[in-house]
Amino acid sequence: MSRLNETHDPALQSWVASANRAGQDFTIQNLPFGVFRRAGTNEAFRGGVAIGDEIVDLAALAATGVIASETEGEAAAALAACTGPTLNDFMALGQPAWSALRLALSRALRAGSPLADAMHACLVPQAAAEFAVPARIGDYTDFYTSIHHATNVGKLFRPDNPLLPNYKWVPIGYHGRASSIGVSGQAFHRPLGQTMPPGADKPNFGPSQRLDYELELGIFIGQGNQLGSRIALDDAESHVFGLCLLNDWSARDLQAWEYQPLGPFLAKNFATTISPWIVTLEALAPFRTEWTRPAEDPQPLPYLESATLRREGAFDIQIEAWLQTAQMREAGEAGSRLSHSSFRHSYWTVSQMVTHHTVNGCGLQPGDLLGSGTESGPTPEEAGSLLELTVGGKQSLTLPNGETRRFLEDGDAVILRGYCEQAGAARIGFGEAVGRVLPAQH
Amino acid sequence: MSRLNETHDPALQSWVASANRAGQDFTIQNLPFGVFRRAGTNEAFRGGVAIGDEIVDLAALAATGVIASETEGEAAAALAACTGPTLNDFMALGQPAWSALRLALSRALRAGSPLADAMHACLVPQAAAEFAVPARIGDYTDFYTSIHHATNVGKLFRPDNPLLPNYKWVPIGYHGRASSIGVSGQAFHRPLGQTMPPGADKPNFGPSQRLDYELELGIFIGQGNQLGSRIALDDAESHVFGLCLLNDWSARDLQAWEYQPLGPFLAKNFATTISPWIVTLEALAPFRTEWTRPAEDPQPLPYLESATLRREGAFDIQIEAWLQTAQMREAGEAGSRLSHSSFRHSYWTVSQMVTHHTVNGCGLQPGDLLGSGTESGPTPEEAGSLLELTVGGKQSLTLPNGETRRFLEDGDAVILRGYCEQAGAARIGFGEAVGRVLPAQH
Repeated sequence: MSRLNETHDPALQSWVASANRAGQDFTIQNLPFGVFRRAGTNEAFRGGVAIGDEIVDLAALAATGVIASETEGEAAAALAACTGPTLNDFMALGQPAWSALRLALSRALRAGSPLADAMHACLVPQAAAEFAVPARIGDYTDFYTSIHHATNVGKLFRPDNPLLPNYKWVPIGYHGRASSIGVSGQAFHRPLGQTMPPGADKPNFGPSQRLDYELELGIFIGQGNQLGSRIALDDAESHVFGLCLLNDWSARDLQAWEYQPLGPFLAKNFATTISPWIVTLEALAPFRTEWTRPAEDPQPLPYLESATLRREGAFDIQIEAWLQTAQMREAGEAGSRLSHSSFRHSYWTVSQMVTHHTVNGCGLQPGDLLGSGTESGPTPEEAGSLLELTVGGKQSLTLPNGETRRFLEDGDAVILRGYCEQAGAARIGFGEAVGRVLPAQH
Repeated sequence: MSRLNETHDPALQSWVASANRAGQDFTIQNLPFGVFRRAGTNEAFRGGVAIGDEIVDLAALAATGVIASETEGEAAAALAACTGPTLNDFMALGQPAWSALRLALSRALRAGSPLADAMHACLVPQAAAEFAVPARIGDYTDFYTSIHHATNVGKLFRPDNPLLPNYKWVPIGYHGRASSIGVSGQAFHRPLGQTMPPGADKPNFGPSQRLDYELELGIFIGQGNQLGSRIALDDAESHVFGLCLLNDWSARDLQAWEYQPLGPFLAKNFATTISPWIVTLEALAPFRTEWTRPAEDPQPLPYLESATLRREGAFDIQIEAWLQTAQMREAGEAGSRLSHSSFRHSYWTVSQMVTHHTVNGCGLQPGDLLGSGTESGPTPEEAGSLLELTVGGKQSLTLPNGETRRFLEDGDAVILRGYCEQAGAARIGFGEAVGRVLPAQH
């Protein structure tokens, strides 16, 4: 409860009218951070905060001086760190700075704020903007925190023993590729590579035939830790700046052939798509929930356990994957929802991922990105990938327009969405992470 | 043969006398690049080139203007790119620029050069310098290119079937951690983590008991490729700036418990140590050798095959691992050589690693680092890790001073060395990559 403050008050309204619209992701209680410029220009990318259908241009806001260093020193310093082409400097400032700027923006954007006139000139319509990956991502780590996903995938390979013995003890993760992470709108060519057809005596080379998406959340690290130090579980969240949507595109046929013994490589590193907006952990405070572990399962080792974790270590974030085929796009159709689940089902939490990652002394840095792994829920309809929804490609999905899919086809766009809703709190949303498959280039 | 030019002439001597000493790594035919400053100062790190026992301070050299833009335009521009704290800008310039600066430095450092007087003031003794990781490493990938290592390790887990079916087709690689890469001299605390003792029903948490080194070469990418594009095999080496030594420290007990199904993670990402000097591919030209594949093995798929590869795609680089225990250090002993092999035994080449990495469209960037994987040779004595030399810790090694080792103990330093020697060519060397184990921090 003590995590809530005046910025979470569900009664708050903004003088940006679109922020008050029902179903709006970017309410005044949200205030997510991103990096943008006006589309089609050579303007410098700079920090922005989403409010309704608009963006507060943080470089323009800093230039106005209305958030003044005399009266709001910490917020003004934080704002100054948001004027460049990445948010790394802002992320490095830490929780008090993030919180000070959030409070200043919340007050400035409220209906009746005396700053409204001055701030009006700092608004850029989201529809007129283009976005960049909001941080220089030094290292990207992908976890595997949904036991439902791990079990679904394991069943395809080991029907009698789907879950490996380490799963319930170790928050499994591996390093991914930072350079191929792109922001929503990313389009990529179907990857080529080696695959080994069943029964063949030599591999094929050609375009992946089993291209898939993975519905994940991304976790941006704020303040890091020195190489050689560890982050204790109850300190872990103070190192987390916020969360975004993440699509870990996967070529299942490449993956099956290459992944032993060192893990996925070319099956994943051709593209990863994130949403432009990072929702801060502070904004997510009303949607915290208890974290439980089934009584029959092993309970975490002490370094991954705490009372705070049990009380409020999980986040109830609704997540959805939508498919818009080329045919749907041509017909003006928005797409078809493939699945809907919640991050609260995750077997391991944000704090457990951070603490486990550093328990050996590994150093995290501001702007590092963690993926949660595919967040499949407990029922088959809540699965976060086609591999699961089609049972390894054995069952075809029929879409509302009559098309069918086992895996992704050229022209398909996948749209991830996320939002939090509950009685007594204002809705907040993550917007979208959209990516599209282009034909292979030979 | 056409790869050789006047800079490779074995008759060249330098006015830096130590460069002409027998057994010298840093001859005038070598000219490796690194980043340094005077130890114990707050000077800015800047580029340097090793010559004998000295370093040519490239920022100081640029300031003298003796490599003049009027007469040596490309070399002067390349030199200007070496004055900052990383070599990324220089790496991005590409082969003609690297080559132009090498030629200018070779001429300026030759006995009798009229620039000797002016350059004398630009020399800093290596013994008075401290080094930095020479590039901002965006992404770090570790390969697994020694079939002898893969077989040795595989035998420990699967005696009847040591090599997985993909090994002879796929240059296996995986993503590693960039933020924990340190330069020679790195000391790190023994990592803590989860291990599952044989027969136990729950994991232990504590310091790794099976800490190991891995003798590898590192490959620095020069010019990158756009995301979505591929690098053809015969173009691959033009994207490679040069090679260094790399120690991929590994906690075998953490690795055994965590690595299924997504590969090594905390077992590796606590520390990786590289040598300060990057030896360019141009310097290595005299030590190219044919690349062969046993006739009974599958030959590479077409994208990994070429006549140039067959003719001169491998490099005969001698590599050694030495162990200096705390007791040896106190006794003033340099250490004991554990193994000696050559990179020419690698099952996959530098060019094959680069081409395979990008075949799916993955984008490489200037300063990215590839590890070769542990370069164990064909005989047991040529193994590049303690895991292999002690057969999984079952056979103790006795050191010359009577100490024994199965895995590394606190205080142990591991020293990697590399060099090229053959009749008709000047010796060139990689210097050392030294790292040291500190006790675990609880």
